[in-house]
Amino acid sequence: MAEQKNQQFVKEIADMTVDFPQWFTDVVIKTGMVDYGPVKGTMVIRPYGYAIWERIQQELNVRFAAHGVENAYFPMFIPYSYLTKEAEHVEGFAPEVAVVTHAGGEELSEKLVVRPTSETIIGKMFSKWIQSYRDLPVRINQWANVVRWEKTTRPFLRTSEFLWQEGHTAHRTEEEAVEMTLDILRVYEEFAANVLAIPMLVGKKTEKEKFAGALATYTIEAMMLDGKSLQSGTSHHLGQNFAKAFDIRFLDKDGTLHLPYQSSWGVSTRLIGALVMAHGDQRGLALPPKVAPKQVVIVPVAAHKPGVIERASALADELRLKGVRVELDARDQSPGWKFNEWEMKGVPLRIELGPRDIENNACVTVRRDTHDKTVQSLDGIAETVLALLDEIQANMLEKARNFRDSHIVTVSNVDELKEAVDNGNFTKTMWCGMRACEDKIKELTAASSRCMPFDQTPVGEKCVCCGKPLASGEGHVIYFAKAY
Amino acid sequence: MAEQKNQQFVKEIADMTVDFPQWFTDVVIKTGMVDYGPVKGTMVIRPYGYAIWERIQQELNVRFAAHGVENAYFPMFIPYSYLTKEAEHVEGFAPEVAVVTHAGGEELSEKLVVRPTSETIIGKMFSKWIQSYRDLPVRINQWANVVRWEKTTRPFLRTSEFLWQEGHTAHRTEEEAVEMTLDILRVYEEFAANVLAIPMLVGKKTEKEKFAGALATYTIEAMMLDGKSLQSGTSHHLGQNFAKAFDIRFLDKDGTLHLPYQSSWGVSTRLIGALVMAHGDQRGLALPPKVAPKQVVIVPVAAHKPGVIERASALADELRLKGVRVELDARDQSPGWKFNEWEMKGVPLRIELGPRDIENNACVTVRRDTHDKTVQSLDGIAETVLALLDEIQANMLEKARNFRDSHIVTVSNVDELKEAVDNGNFTKTMWCGMRACEDKIKELTAASSRCMPFDQTPVGEKCVCCGKPLASGEGHVIYFAKAY
Repeated sequence: MAEQKNQQFVKEIADMTVDFPQWFTDVVIKTGMVDYGPVKGTMVIRPYGYAIWERIQQELNVRFAAHGVENAYFPMFIPYSYLTKEAEHVEGFAPEVAVVTHAGGEELSEKLVVRPTSETIIGKMFSKWIQSYRDLPVRINQWANVVRWEKTTRPFLRTSEFLWQEGHTAHRTEEEAVEMTLDILRVYEEFAANVLAIPMLVGKKTEKEKFAGALATYTIEAMMLDGKSLQSGTSHHLGQNFAKAFDIRFLDKDGTLHLPYQSSWGVSTRLIGALVMAHGDQRGLALPPKVAPKQVVIVPVAAHKPGVIERASALADELRLKGVRVELDARDQSPGWKFNEWEMKGVPLRIELGPRDIENNACVTVRRDTHDKTVQSLDGIAETVLALLDEIQANMLEKARNFRDSHIVTVSNVDELKEAVDNGNFTKTMWCGMRACEDKIKELTAASSRCMPFDQTPVGEKCVCCGKPLASGEGHVIYFAKAY
Repeated sequence: MAEQKNQQFVKEIADMTVDFPQWFTDVVIKTGMVDYGPVKGTMVIRPYGYAIWERIQQELNVRFAAHGVENAYFPMFIPYSYLTKEAEHVEGFAPEVAVVTHAGGEELSEKLVVRPTSETIIGKMFSKWIQSYRDLPVRINQWANVVRWEKTTRPFLRTSEFLWQEGHTAHRTEEEAVEMTLDILRVYEEFAANVLAIPMLVGKKTEKEKFAGALATYTIEAMMLDGKSLQSGTSHHLGQNFAKAFDIRFLDKDGTLHLPYQSSWGVSTRLIGALVMAHGDQRGLALPPKVAPKQVVIVPVAAHKPGVIERASALADELRLKGVRVELDARDQSPGWKFNEWEMKGVPLRIELGPRDIENNACVTVRRDTHDKTVQSLDGIAETVLALLDEIQANMLEKARNFRDSHIVTVSNVDELKEAVDNGNFTKTMWCGMRACEDKIKELTAASSRCMPFDQTPVGEKCVCCGKPLASGEGHVIYFAKAY
């Protein structure tokens, strides 16, 4: 019976090997992470998804603060004219903005855009706040909603409105701005590895793929289980572009006026999509303990027998005292049904506790990542559980790293590149640096450039596309992959 | 010199006894809590203000969770037609909304409003999620930005866009919905007293003042130092109004379909304005330790002397270890300048530490609330500081309570009422319950009804306005005051 229900339950989710996009949608909807909003392209982030976002926020806030970053909040309505002040910026964002034309029952004298990102309005405020070199650096972050109108949308991955953080800094020198840009990139990489258990490919974007208005964009790219890439965070060196556009000037030590150098950087609720597609399996979600809303679920077996619920409840309290996020599932459902539900919801560790276990002063733990089932003594169970959660966290990263590393193929021509990405791989190759080649690869293979890693040790001697020979120091090592 | 600078500094802030509104604006701008946004009526919440908001969020999240409330996020764009589904609701909010007519380069087929509040979109989602009595109760909260287009605006108090939390719940029975409404009201009251050190007047709003679409609105009202009231949070019993409008129906235990009963409730960044106007003085802000971004500032005296900075730094570390939010101000400015700055910023406790103090194994503490200056031993200083912070927190509440209680005048006719409110008091009186009297009082005195307290022990025998005799059980005990 439990076995039947098990199968039935998993059947609610599409087979990930057959239809990965449908598997993703099934998982995020059926686990109660998200729902579709009434306006096309919008999403409702439900408590199970939002709890993950709150953990992401907490983890990043600590890291940002360690880099001298303070949180603030800027208005979401930006005068349309601001958008046009930086030429590349308006070209990149104008087609996607939502526009407020009326408010308070009247037509507005100037249209307002709902922020697609906040470089412009923050640039305006910086021009007011930054007068002297003593005012620098300014390092500000905001957690906010942003709107980018998209034709094709998918919960978490691409929605008209999403939640994110956007950091904005201003510095006296270019070196400091570049250092900040790269410091945050490293924060993202470390956070993704240690909290989300996702090993990122890290590097620089091509001119084509960089942020509209930046001098350089750096990115963290996650490999999803279908071999596609998910751009998961970016950090931009803005140079003096926005300082020029918004006339941010400071009096330097030598008494002359200068434009500061800026950085901006962000990650979004897209990270929740990354988690799903990096760790899930046929049974549904698998969440790393550090972001799991519930780390442990206790399922009582033969719960009607005297003492079972009481012992399970005491166990839950014992774990809670040690800071474990634990759920005691005492609902009137069969254990098998509960096993399936909590597996689908990706809870890292399940504890089964029945009368015989209690008699033996024991319980059974089942890991979500490996499905390992182990009888554990109830003596020192909190320490056992904490150690298991650490193991699960480490193992998930290790597993994702092995998956990633075994799905990167070095290629030396477009046919090889196409074959590799069609088979669910990233490709590593050499590129001459010409936009024409980048475009042609996209056209022929549907793969886009993801990033140029910092380690530029050549993996070939000619451009993967045009075949141009690349002497030492010429061209770029680069990753191409299909992407979300 | 220090004394001169002191006076000069304070001169930057208007005299609160002469121009209280200007004093407020000076304080919130000059302490770096807030700045004006480029779009009329918007504000930028700067790090010093936002840090207070983050503490408010943390404190409330813990309390909401204890009442079974989970956080989530709903889209900010609401189809215009939703607004019109509940008759009172549209009447109340339609004049204030901002409207998106274009997005992604095209005119939208249906206009979207930027949420002024989310009962409608959440009602729509509830109608999808709530099918059975087993799905109830639903208790959801979101932290979000909302937009209400206002003619007259003031930072924190009334802005076109502000941040808030809005809780939305649905229940099987009316009793449960009312209980939730009042539970949260009590949460707000307790939080305001124990965290913000603001004693609230608590009660029910009149029909005129209730939320558009609610059956009943309950409120917490704070007395500002000018004797005006600031509505600081509301909790609404919505009855089945939105359930009807959005067709939320559940199958009850008896197999019949029913509409659930709902509550909604919220507090906003307005609370930061309440803090300023409840505790400030001629020197600027005074923040209760529980929400102060920095609880203690250490100002080294004769900082150039050997060992001073080192000892101050060790002291800061010692306090930090005990969880105190401490700032060591080692900037190249005079101690007097720093004293003034941190007083203006409302830091609850200042520690002065110079060579002679160090010699004596001592330091000087100066309380922001009482200006008490005390020599303290450096032995066990962390415990001393923690105890002082507790004392300051308690004293600020006590002081605000005394101020409030001494500024409530019981009145029995409109002349008395007018005189009392003109002299910076709240009035407590009897009201027959007629809208005409409520309107007339507003017209004649500029005071509005604030709330009807739960304790309805009569304070007179006739209506303050029309003079109608009120037999036992007739009419209402009510507070009238000028309000923000």
